[in-house]
Amino acid sequence: MKYVYMFEEADGKNKMLLGGKGAGLAEMTRLGLPVPPGFTVTTQGCTAYYSNGRKLPDAIWEEIRTAMAALEKKTGKAFGRGRNPLLVSVRSGSALSMPGMMDTILNLGLSDESAKTLARETGDERFALDAYRRFIQIFCKVALGVDGDLFEKALATAKAESGAKLDSDLTASALTGVVARFKEIARKATGRDLPVDPWEQLRVATTAVFDSWEGKRARDYRAHFKIGPDQANGTAVNVVAMVFGNLGERSATGVAFTRDPGSGENTFYGEYLNNAQGEDVVAGIRTPLPIAELAREMSSVHAELLDVKKKLESHYREVQDIEFTVERGKLYMLQTRNAKMNAHAALVTSVDLVEEGLISKERALLRIGPSDLEQLMYPGIDPKAKIQPFAKGMPASPGAACGRAVFDADEAVRRAKLGEKLVLVREETKPEDIHGFFASVGILTSRGGKTSHAAVVARGMGKSCVCGAESIRIDAKERRAVAGETVFREGDRITIDGSTGNVYLGEVPLVASEVVQALQGDRTQETKVSRAFARLMQWADEARTLGVYANADTPEDAARARRFGAGGIGLCRTERMFNAVDRLPIVRAMILASDPKERAARIAELLPLQKADFKGILKAMNGLPVTVRLLDPPLHEFLPSVEELLHEMSTLQDFSEIVRHLDELPEMVRLVDPKLGEQMTAIDSMRRLLAEVKNRHQDEKLLQRKESELARVRQLHEVNPMLGHRGVRLGITYPEIYEMQIRALYQAVVELIQEGHSPRPEIMVPQVCTAKELEWVHRLEREVKAEVEATSGVKIECPFGTMIEVVRACMRAGKLAEIAEFFSFGTNDLSQATFSFSREDAEAKFLPLYTERKILQDNPFEILDVKGVGRLMEIAIEWGRKTRPDLKIGICGEHGGQPQAVEFCHEIGLTYVSCSPFRVPIARLAAAQAAVRTKSKQPVPSSI
Amino acid sequence: MKYVYMFEEADGKNKMLLGGKGAGLAEMTRLGLPVPPGFTVTTQGCTAYYSNGRKLPDAIWEEIRTAMAALEKKTGKAFGRGRNPLLVSVRSGSALSMPGMMDTILNLGLSDESAKTLARETGDERFALDAYRRFIQIFCKVALGVDGDLFEKALATAKAESGAKLDSDLTASALTGVVARFKEIARKATGRDLPVDPWEQLRVATTAVFDSWEGKRARDYRAHFKIGPDQANGTAVNVVAMVFGNLGERSATGVAFTRDPGSGENTFYGEYLNNAQGEDVVAGIRTPLPIAELAREMSSVHAELLDVKKKLESHYREVQDIEFTVERGKLYMLQTRNAKMNAHAALVTSVDLVEEGLISKERALLRIGPSDLEQLMYPGIDPKAKIQPFAKGMPASPGAACGRAVFDADEAVRRAKLGEKLVLVREETKPEDIHGFFASVGILTSRGGKTSHAAVVARGMGKSCVCGAESIRIDAKERRAVAGETVFREGDRITIDGSTGNVYLGEVPLVASEVVQALQGDRTQETKVSRAFARLMQWADEARTLGVYANADTPEDAARARRFGAGGIGLCRTERMFNAVDRLPIVRAMILASDPKERAARIAELLPLQKADFKGILKAMNGLPVTVRLLDPPLHEFLPSVEELLHEMSTLQDFSEIVRHLDELPEMVRLVDPKLGEQMTAIDSMRRLLAEVKNRHQDEKLLQRKESELARVRQLHEVNPMLGHRGVRLGITYPEIYEMQIRALYQAVVELIQEGHSPRPEIMVPQVCTAKELEWVHRLEREVKAEVEATSGVKIECPFGTMIEVVRACMRAGKLAEIAEFFSFGTNDLSQATFSFSREDAEAKFLPLYTERKILQDNPFEILDVKGVGRLMEIAIEWGRKTRPDLKIGICGEHGGQPQAVEFCHEIGLTYVSCSPFRVPIARLAAAQAAVRTKSKQPVPSSI
Repeated sequence: MKYVYMFEEADGKNKMLLGGKGAGLAEMTRLGLPVPPGFTVTTQGCTAYYSNGRKLPDAIWEEIRTAMAALEKKTGKAFGRGRNPLLVSVRSGSALSMPGMMDTILNLGLSDESAKTLARETGDERFALDAYRRFIQIFCKVALGVDGDLFEKALATAKAESGAKLDSDLTASALTGVVARFKEIARKATGRDLPVDPWEQLRVATTAVFDSWEGKRARDYRAHFKIGPDQANGTAVNVVAMVFGNLGERSATGVAFTRDPGSGENTFYGEYLNNAQGEDVVAGIRTPLPIAELAREMSSVHAELLDVKKKLESHYREVQDIEFTVERGKLYMLQTRNAKMNAHAALVTSVDLVEEGLISKERALLRIGPSDLEQLMYPGIDPKAKIQPFAKGMPASPGAACGRAVFDADEAVRRAKLGEKLVLVREETKPEDIHGFFASVGILTSRGGKTSHAAVVARGMGKSCVCGAESIRIDAKERRAVAGETVFREGDRITIDGSTGNVYLGEVPLVASEVVQALQGDRTQETKVSRAFARLMQWADEARTLGVYANADTPEDAARARRFGAGGIGLCRTERMFNAVDRLPIVRAMILASDPKERAARIAELLPLQKADFKGILKAMNGLPVTVRLLDPPLHEFLPSVEELLHEMSTLQDFSEIVRHLDELPEMVRLVDPKLGEQMTAIDSMRRLLAEVKNRHQDEKLLQRKESELARVRQLHEVNPMLGHRGVRLGITYPEIYEMQIRALYQAVVELIQEGHSPRPEIMVPQVCTAKELEWVHRLEREVKAEVEATSGVKIECPFGTMIEVVRACMRAGKLAEIAEFFSFGTNDLSQATFSFSREDAEAKFLPLYTERKILQDNPFEILDVKGVGRLMEIAIEWGRKTRPDLKIGICGEHGGQPQAVEFCHEIGLTYVSCSPFRVPIARLAAAQAAVRTKSKQPVPSSI
Repeated sequence: MKYVYMFEEADGKNKMLLGGKGAGLAEMTRLGLPVPPGFTVTTQGCTAYYSNGRKLPDAIWEEIRTAMAALEKKTGKAFGRGRNPLLVSVRSGSALSMPGMMDTILNLGLSDESAKTLARETGDERFALDAYRRFIQIFCKVALGVDGDLFEKALATAKAESGAKLDSDLTASALTGVVARFKEIARKATGRDLPVDPWEQLRVATTAVFDSWEGKRARDYRAHFKIGPDQANGTAVNVVAMVFGNLGERSATGVAFTRDPGSGENTFYGEYLNNAQGEDVVAGIRTPLPIAELAREMSSVHAELLDVKKKLESHYREVQDIEFTVERGKLYMLQTRNAKMNAHAALVTSVDLVEEGLISKERALLRIGPSDLEQLMYPGIDPKAKIQPFAKGMPASPGAACGRAVFDADEAVRRAKLGEKLVLVREETKPEDIHGFFASVGILTSRGGKTSHAAVVARGMGKSCVCGAESIRIDAKERRAVAGETVFREGDRITIDGSTGNVYLGEVPLVASEVVQALQGDRTQETKVSRAFARLMQWADEARTLGVYANADTPEDAARARRFGAGGIGLCRTERMFNAVDRLPIVRAMILASDPKERAARIAELLPLQKADFKGILKAMNGLPVTVRLLDPPLHEFLPSVEELLHEMSTLQDFSEIVRHLDELPEMVRLVDPKLGEQMTAIDSMRRLLAEVKNRHQDEKLLQRKESELARVRQLHEVNPMLGHRGVRLGITYPEIYEMQIRALYQAVVELIQEGHSPRPEIMVPQVCTAKELEWVHRLEREVKAEVEATSGVKIECPFGTMIEVVRACMRAGKLAEIAEFFSFGTNDLSQATFSFSREDAEAKFLPLYTERKILQDNPFEILDVKGVGRLMEIAIEWGRKTRPDLKIGICGEHGGQPQAVEFCHEIGLTYVSCSPFRVPIARLAAAQAAVRTKSKQPVPSSI
């Protein structure tokens, strides 16, 4: 086996063998770029080293010696000796870049002897001594394990003694002293003299690189990121002839990107330092110059670099991140690798590279991560702003928002009308706060997690939300909040970042999302990024086979979803309509109705309201399917809680008590002190006021009403509401509700058809566990349909389907598909039932510990659990399609917008995913990527 | 196709063709028993009738005429005419006996003409007229659909007019009038004269029988009991030559069982009436005589009947239920069918028939229903007692119990020590009431359902329990309860019937279970029944392949389980040990511990207690496996509720308030009226008393403690406790608890081994959803085991397994089986998760409606849902055994003792079922039946 390859003979595609750095050097050498001569000891050499009990096998050493001989021949220099001593750098490099691996050793081959020769040859004694002390310092630290601080201290002492401010102020004689001190430090620490033999230096450095592969930091890193031997198996060692960027003003060193990694613009982007070595750029002692300066200072080198850029991009078909050194006017390339870019740049370059003919559309689609795309969708805190958060909660709905704090929903609405931008601040939110959400740009709560009402609603609306910022004590009555020493009052400006959970005082500068602005139809906001986004989305739509729908409950949401590219509404939650501020009192009255007549009256009131909602949504989605889910949540969710009612009742009781005792008060006061009789008038007027209030509010009746409400709330109370009286169970016990919803939908459909539109409703039944439930609702649906059709003379088309969110529905999928024309997986509930985890409880109590200890890899409510929930889905799909081969199958849980889940849904043959409007573009990209990956995995048909 | 068979030519085995009645008559004819001649029109005739548009096909009529001709020849009479007119009865008869089918028409063939001939021939005009009026009455009613009341009224009028008390008091001339009136009624109702042509009568009667098959009552009955065409497809028509039991004193009619259907004794059992027709026996106007009388009155007939009994039992190998008529000394058999018997008789005859060589042991096992066996296990209300319940609740744990009412657990213990039998009466029970359960013979609650604490614990203990008797208002403080007008106080005797839910005032006579007394080792109580039971159980154990274990949490339960035939403990719930009255304070202190040291101390206190429990149970089950489930319920279940704590705190606060204000009281009193100063002494002494109490109880500290308890309870509160922080999730977050439990178990095992016993512990982990959880506990278990083994020098054998009660565990069964050596299905929780039903909520809110409307066939918590939950079980078994082919698999949910579930568990290859000790015999029988059925379904090996 061959362990050592000269750059010109190595296969630069084989990163696993050569490591990333070695592969890059080999590839550049082959492309004819100016790489200093050198060679790579392969990762197989590393494996052999460990197999040999951490001893360098003789065979490898022999190959290294041979390679060094070739290097000497190529450079015309002798290794560490002679008139023109050959010096080398030794660098680690595995297939994946990995912190904790060994630093570069520069100037290897120097000794007292050769340093002198170098000084003589370069005519620069200071340069030679500086190179020597650098070699000693880094060799001792990384190859011999000597404490680096000892050298730093010695260097500081020397500078102090000679009055030098910077390292570069040290004179040659001062550096002579430094070298002596460094050698002494090495001797003391290692118990022997520094090796002067360059071969011994090389052997020590090589084994030190191999050893660093099993160092603690490297091992921890691999364990944490689960990097297995199939991704990186050992480190290579790269030995390169030294070139010097610090040989005077015509020398330089620099790093660059072939395109701007911040904006993606196709301009050469980087910086350099004259007369410096690589580490000086990193150290940041001198300020590097922008690469454009190089065009003025060394125009031929700059031109050569532009040529390199072109060659590298043509070759790699990817933006490159390079290192170079200029030695006395001659350019040397020291590294190249694919550039890391931010989301903007990744997007822009993806489209540019396609248009430049460098990559295919498929490659462009795979090149940008769906979560990068997400970054583009939300406004963020301006990264340039230097400001500290005063509190931190959970990042519940991404994006940053800034506005005036407001402590209740009504006030939010009032202020919003005055044109204020607001952040709604609550301990926690409830359905009745919903108008406050509409009025605000963001929501901040001090209680509840990512699954709380605030979080779920905010995500659905695409509004920024920070939840459970527990350090903030909110006093809604006093209209102020306190966190440590920070206090803010209603009307004070605050900024929240729903992507990080940070909360800031005052107005922090934000960066808006160009993409969203453009998507929302604001043509004036079109930019290179938003145009690139549009192109990419177009390619994604061409590539994907999986449909992408949105979850939307209002005409506004539906319109937004459509602009974001949704092919339909996969989940229209009718209960959100029940929660609207004008509906809730009617809904409550319906639930509290003591007789069927009263209930029927309330339901009749709701019908026109729901019809109007449905009309708006169907119109917004004209021509596209709208999947209407019949009422799902348990009725008690629409009522106040026992605690709230008890509190209200006790207040009312206290009030009655005071009013009652007020009559006795004068007598009591007189008894204590007759002189106080003067104040009787005050008591009298107060008594009159209260009596008036009492009359007006008829508090006794109010109390009675509250009592009957309380009784109903107690009656509806459930031990496990997640598994309770909801969904179709509710529909069957209170058929009048489902009937009204179906009627409202069909009346809306009929009116739209009559107005010349093309509504495409679908009806979906939640919480189904047995086919009989579905049959039951289906019968009701057909009755109402027949009636509406007969009355209107209009024919209604409306597929009838079921949610699959109960485990038993998966087991009975074959039977359900006899009735259901489509399935829609509700993976939120399905995951809860599959794990027997109550999301709210689990996330608060044990899930963090579970993911921390890796008992679960991920929170299954964030990342779809493919092994458990996914398996159930596969079973349901198989059995469902056995009955009805053309069964349309979707997913409408929150996972629908999560990239891994989208890929899984593509693989198992779903028809569509449905997610919140803001995640539609992400899902479109993820679906396209899944399709491209599947295609590339498929064998090429034999006819081609 | 042939539609009509004479009795002697029909195949009496073919009930589907001939109906039950026809088949019996054919079979008896072939056996040479004295059956009047006759024939059967087959059920295929019925089908042909319907296919022909409800018209009797000519072919059938022709066959009927041919058969009638044969009948005429056989009897030497002419049908409805001539000197000796042939009369027949026409009876319906399908494969299954079915209410709503047509009644028998007797004396068909009579007319004015033939009635006269009959009078002359028999020399009994009264008899002939009575026969005639009976014919008219029943023919009109059942074949022509005339309102039967019209005839009853006319008959009553005739009796009144002639001064007759009984029908039989009517003279011939009175009957002549009755016949005239009846004919008039028929004419008025049908618009024409009664058919006098016997052939027309026969044709009308035949089609009426066929029509009755599709009558409303028959259809409803078939729909309700889901009787499909494979069980009964149409009715047959039986036409039999009339014989008369009412032709004087040497005539009689009777019904009999070949053995006593109440006790199973092998004695001929029945009753008869002299000079009567069949309907007179049923009508109950005259009191029939016991069959033994017949031996005296007509000894040859009695002897002939005994011969018939012998022949029938030898032939049918089953106890028979027969009808017979004696006409002038000659016996005729009119019907035979398998007898319905009560549980005692079914058991005794099963064993007797085997011992008499009439049936096989397999047949004996199939002959008795597991629920019949259940009847034998519990004491019941004496059926002879004439007493009305004053309230009704849910039948939560079967059996009746009588004792003095007691309103709290402590009082129950106190009184039990005095030797009283007690019924614990509570609104609802809690874990801390558990000592009250032990002290009582039954439990009555006014709240909660079949799944409430009281119900579950009572079932586990086999104590009678009635739950949720909501009409009873219980005032525990006043120690009395009121239901309507009924009041009972502590110490008053009440009786509850946990099999029906009835509650009675006073001591109602009970019938003890002979079986249980014998099983519990009381040899003096051995009876024929208990001996038969023991035999049957022995055969069951020989036949079954499925193991039967018991769920038991105490040494007493374990001992009982063993006596009841359990092969091991399939579920030993360690939390029941935490709930014992001496443990609960320690458990609470552990949960409330503010630091780990305090918690460790409390856990250390629990260890010896758990060890002692384990020792007792393992010793009771010496040599048999005991499956110990580690702690399962959420911690908050061991703490008082928020409501309780708030109430306690408010009481304490009120108390402090009073004490505080007491100082001011004298001043206040003096202010109002100085003369009241006299009463100051009273106030003073009260103040001293309260100050003393205050000191003693240090109420402030108590309040603080309650406050911190409340905080912890609130912290532990869960939205959906069923899906909450419990089972292995608890074990992982508080590893010290599981560690203590495992250590206690292993120390117990070591001590038992050292004492020469053979403990066989198994450890089972609850609520597992991923293999990592199991790995985690397994590591803990191996550590503790190694430590205990090292300390003691004793080697411990203990299989390690998992509950399968989370859906995801089913999906991951293959992976779990890598660690788990056994599975145990927890179908209670698994059913909840599969349906997304919270049992407590569902049973209170919508399950009754669901089963009523047949949306679900059964309550899945009572009857295992084979299609959903069962499917998951099958998947888990398949995947689990793929990994580990010898995987031991059991079930320990409440379904484990439910016969259908036992059969299903046998079919899907479970190793054992585990149920409450009292259900062990039922499960043993059910398992045997399943094995026998499987065997009989298997094809006979070809070598036989």
